[in-house]
Amino acid sequence: MSSSQIRHILDLSPKERQRFVDSFDCVICDCDGVLWTVFDPIPGVGEALKTLQTHGKTLRYITNNSVFTYDHYAAQFRTLGITLTPSDIIHPALAIVRHLKSIHFEGLIFCLATQPFKNVLINAGFELTEGPDQPLEESFKKIIATVHDRAPVRAVVIDVDFNINYPKLLRAELYLKNDPKCLLIAGATDKVLHARKGFNLIGPGHFLDVLEQSTGRKATVLGKPGKELANLVGDIFGIEDRGRVLFVGDMLEQDMVFASRCGFQKMLVLSGGASKDDMLQERDVERVPDYYADRLEDLTKLFE
Amino acid sequence: MSSSQIRHILDLSPKERQRFVDSFDCVICDCDGVLWTVFDPIPGVGEALKTLQTHGKTLRYITNNSVFTYDHYAAQFRTLGITLTPSDIIHPALAIVRHLKSIHFEGLIFCLATQPFKNVLINAGFELTEGPDQPLEESFKKIIATVHDRAPVRAVVIDVDFNINYPKLLRAELYLKNDPKCLLIAGATDKVLHARKGFNLIGPGHFLDVLEQSTGRKATVLGKPGKELANLVGDIFGIEDRGRVLFVGDMLEQDMVFASRCGFQKMLVLSGGASKDDMLQERDVERVPDYYADRLEDLTKLFE
Repeated sequence: MSSSQIRHILDLSPKERQRFVDSFDCVICDCDGVLWTVFDPIPGVGEALKTLQTHGKTLRYITNNSVFTYDHYAAQFRTLGITLTPSDIIHPALAIVRHLKSIHFEGLIFCLATQPFKNVLINAGFELTEGPDQPLEESFKKIIATVHDRAPVRAVVIDVDFNINYPKLLRAELYLKNDPKCLLIAGATDKVLHARKGFNLIGPGHFLDVLEQSTGRKATVLGKPGKELANLVGDIFGIEDRGRVLFVGDMLEQDMVFASRCGFQKMLVLSGGASKDDMLQERDVERVPDYYADRLEDLTKLFE
Repeated sequence: MSSSQIRHILDLSPKERQRFVDSFDCVICDCDGVLWTVFDPIPGVGEALKTLQTHGKTLRYITNNSVFTYDHYAAQFRTLGITLTPSDIIHPALAIVRHLKSIHFEGLIFCLATQPFKNVLINAGFELTEGPDQPLEESFKKIIATVHDRAPVRAVVIDVDFNINYPKLLRAELYLKNDPKCLLIAGATDKVLHARKGFNLIGPGHFLDVLEQSTGRKATVLGKPGKELANLVGDIFGIEDRGRVLFVGDMLEQDMVFASRCGFQKMLVLSGGASKDDMLQERDVERVPDYYADRLEDLTKLFE
C-alpha cells in the first residue's frame, strides 16, 4: 500500500465501515500517544475502549514504557473506566523476563533501566548489577579502573534509563567485549520520545546505537518494533489469527513496523508522535499504516 | 595515493630519506598514541623530538585531549626532556576560545566537558552553565521540568565529558531547538578512545552524534579533524607553507583526515589507535597517510 492509498476510517463508506469492524476480533493499542500523552489526556479514549468491548472486541495493550509499574497502569486505566488485568498488557521488562525464562538464562544482568523496570526483573528472580550513578573523578585511568570491574555479567539489558551516563555505557561495552557470550538485550529502542505536540526529545534508542557501534553487536529487541517481541506476542496474548488483530499506534517506526512484522492490520492515530505529513511522506511499506484516524475516539463512530 | 603505495620511512633509500627530511621544516605531532598512551610510555620519543630540534625542525603539537591542563602537558614534556611553551600546543578548548573570540561571541555557554576544559573558557572570560550532574528522579515530567530551564544559552559546547548523561543531553537539545541561533560547537569528536593496545573504548563523538541527529544541526568542530580547526591552524602556528609541514598522528580519522584538510604531509605511527591492517584496508584517500612508521623513534634513524 502506498501512502496515498491510506484511508481515514471516517472516509470509509457505510459498507466499508461494516467490513472493517467485522475484520478484527482483537484490538491491541499502544499506550503513550494513543490513550494519553505525557502531559495531556486524549479526549474520548475511555468511551472508545468501552465501545470496542461492548461490540465484543478483545482489548490488549503493548507499550514500550516500562517506566511505570503495573499498579500505575491499572490506575491509569481506571481513570478511563477500564479494568486492567496483568495479562492484558505487555511492556519491554515483562517481555524480557519471558524471553530470559524461555532461554533458561542464568547469571548476572547489568541493567541500564529505571527502577520499576529493574523491579520486574528482580521479582522474576534475576540478579542485577547496575551503576555507577554518581559522577566519577575526571581521570580516564581512574574511570577505567572503576568501570572495568570484571563482574561475571552474562547479559546487558538496556531500556529507558533517565540517568544513563558515560561510565555506565563504558561498563556495558566492557562486559560485552570481554565475554562474547554475554547477551545484549534491548527494551525500548525509540529514537524519539514524544512529550507533547511539537515537543520531541532524544529517545533511549540512541544509547543502544552507541553500544552496538562500539561493540559490533546487534541487540535482541524485546520492545516494539523488535522482531523477537513480534515472535513472542502471539503466544503471550494467545492470538490464533494475526490477520484478525487491529493494532493501533501513534509511531511509524515502533508501532507500524511492529504491526507489520506481526502480520496485524495497522491503524495510525495522529494524537501522538507522528503527524499526517510524516505518514504521507513515508515510503517504507513496513512503516505505512493500512488506516488512520485523528484519534482513537474516531473508532466509536464506526459502531453508531 | 592508494594504501599499497604508503612507504614505511625505514624502507626509503638513502636518497629518498634525504629528500624526505629536507621536505619539511616543521613537525606537528599528535600527543596521545604518538608521544605516550594512557597507560604506557612509548620508547624513544624524547630522543626523536630532540633529534628533530637538533636538525632545525620546528616542533608543534595538536591534541584532541583538553582533559589535561597546560601545566600537566608541560610536566609531561619535561619527562621527555622537552621544554614546552604555551604557543607550541593546541587543544580543542584553546581552539574554541580562539574561534569564539574571532566571531566576537557574547553570552552564556552550556558546556559538556571536563573541568580543565571549562577552566580554559572561564579564564578567557566566558560565562558557563552546566549540569545536572547528579541523578534525577525517574519521572519524565520532572526531568523535563528540570532540564527545560530556558536559560539564555547562546552556545552549546561539547567535548570529552566523562560524566555526560541523558539529562545534560536533553538540556543541550532544548537550548538548540529553542533558539535557532544558539551555536553548536564541538571539540574532540573521536568515536573511539584508544587506551592501550587492543583496548578501545566509546569515544565522545558518539554523544555529538546524538545531539546532531536529534536537533538536525551540524556542529562547528574545533578539534581534529574539524574543518574549522584546519582553517585556524595556519594562523595559530604562523605556518607559511603548509606543504613543508609533516603531521604525525596515530589515528586515521582524527589525524590523517585533519592533515589532509590542512594540506600537510602526513605520517601515521602504529604506536596508538590504528593498526597496520586498519591503514592497509583504508580506501578513503583523506584517511590514508603518505608515510608510516612503527613509532616516532623511527624518525631518528633518518638523521643518522
